[in-house]
Amino acid sequence: MGIPVRLWFDYISPYSYLALTRAERFAAEHGVSWAVRPVFYGAVLDATGLSGPAEIPIKREYTLNDVVRAAELLGAALVGPPAHPFRSLEALRATCLFLDDPRALTLVVALSTAAWGEGRDLTRWETIHEVVDSVGLDGSDLEARAADAGKEVLRRTTGQALEAGVFGVPTFGLPDGELFWGHDRLDHLAARLSGRLPETAQRSEEIAARPRGVDRPGVAERFERA
Amino acid sequence: MGIPVRLWFDYISPYSYLALTRAERFAAEHGVSWAVRPVFYGAVLDATGLSGPAEIPIKREYTLNDVVRAAELLGAALVGPPAHPFRSLEALRATCLFLDDPRALTLVVALSTAAWGEGRDLTRWETIHEVVDSVGLDGSDLEARAADAGKEVLRRTTGQALEAGVFGVPTFGLPDGELFWGHDRLDHLAARLSGRLPETAQRSEEIAARPRGVDRPGVAERFERA
Repeated sequence: MGIPVRLWFDYISPYSYLALTRAERFAAEHGVSWAVRPVFYGAVLDATGLSGPAEIPIKREYTLNDVVRAAELLGAALVGPPAHPFRSLEALRATCLFLDDPRALTLVVALSTAAWGEGRDLTRWETIHEVVDSVGLDGSDLEARAADAGKEVLRRTTGQALEAGVFGVPTFGLPDGELFWGHDRLDHLAARLSGRLPETAQRSEEIAARPRGVDRPGVAERFERA
Repeated sequence: MGIPVRLWFDYISPYSYLALTRAERFAAEHGVSWAVRPVFYGAVLDATGLSGPAEIPIKREYTLNDVVRAAELLGAALVGPPAHPFRSLEALRATCLFLDDPRALTLVVALSTAAWGEGRDLTRWETIHEVVDSVGLDGSDLEARAADAGKEVLRRTTGQALEAGVFGVPTFGLPDGELFWGHDRLDHLAARLSGRLPETAQRSEEIAARPRGVDRPGVAERFERA
C-alpha cells in the first residue's frame, strides 16, 4: 500500500491539476498511497483571510502564464476550463461520495483532466456524469447524493484540511503532520520520503519563534495574531 | 555580457536570498547578466492588496519550514535573521547607491547572506557598513547618502517593479517583459533562455481572456477589478 499521504485539492486550482497529472507515477516511484481529500478552496480563503491567485488581477494573469509554462515543461495537456474561476462545488461533492473507493484517485485525476486538460465544463452535471461513468463508478442518483451526503463529507474534509494547517491547494500531508504546498513541492516530498532531506521542523520552529521586527500598519489586527 | 535579466528582490524575503545564492552560477551557466533591482516589498503589498507570507500566522510557520527545506536541498546556509520580518529599508536604500557598479550583485548577495545565511542583523548600520566594506565598495557617508539619494532610487525601482507587474519577490524579468516569480522558477527561466520552453504568452492570454464563472462575495470590490 505504501505510506499514506493526503492530497488536498480543488478542481478550481490548475496547480492541483498539475499535481494530479503526476500523482499516479509519483506513488509508484516513491512508495506512496494517496488519500485524495477534496477541499472547497473558497472556504479556505474565507477562513484564512487570504486571496486566491485568480482574485487579484495582476496575479491572475501571471499565474495563468506560470501554469501554461509548467504544463509545457511537465508535458501535461492544458486547454483550461471555459470559464475561470468556476464553481467546483458540485464536482467536489460528487467526488466526496467515492473517497473510500480504490478508484477515487482515478476519478479525481479524470475530473481534473476534464476541466484543465480538455477544456470541459465541470459546472455541468452532464460532464460530471460522463467522467464518473468513464472510470466505472456508479453514477446513479448522483446529484441528489452529492447535495446530501456529498455536501456533508466536503464540509468535513474542508474542516479537517484547515485543522491540519492547509491554506492552499494542492497540499500534500504526511502522517506525522508535515505539509508540502504546491505541485512544485512534490520534489521536496520525494526528498523527504527518500531520506535525502533531513528533519527540518526543529530548525524552522526555532526561527519562527524569534521576535517580529516590523509589521505594516494593521497587519496584526487583520489576522488576529495571537 | 549576456542577456540582461532584472532581478527584483527585498532582503526581508528568504526566497530572495535563496535565489541570490544561485544567481552567480546561474548567470555563468545560462549567459545571463543580472540587473539587481531592490524592491520595498511592503510597498508592493500595500499597492496590490496582497498579504506577505510572514503576515499570516498559518502561512508564516509553513513558509519558514519550506525555506529551511529548500535551503537544505540547495546546500545553502540558513541561520535566519535575529528577528523576522525585519526592517530592510536601510539596507535596500544603501544598496541603491551602488546599482551601477559592477559589484552590485556581489553586494546584494553578501547583504542577503549576512541576514539569512549568517544570522546577522541587517537593521543595524554597523552590519551594512561591514558588508559594504567587505566587497570593496565606498561606504563613506553611507547613512546620509542612503537616506537621500538611496531613498529616491528605491522609490523609483519599487515603482518600476509595480509597473512591470511585479507582485512578489524575487521576480526575474526578461527584456521582453516576461516575468518569473519565485526562486523555484529559475528552472523555468533557464528553460525559456535555452529555447526548451516554447512561447506561451499567447496561450495564457487566451485563457485569461475567458469569462469569470464565479467569485466570492466582495472580491471584485476588494481589488477594483476593471
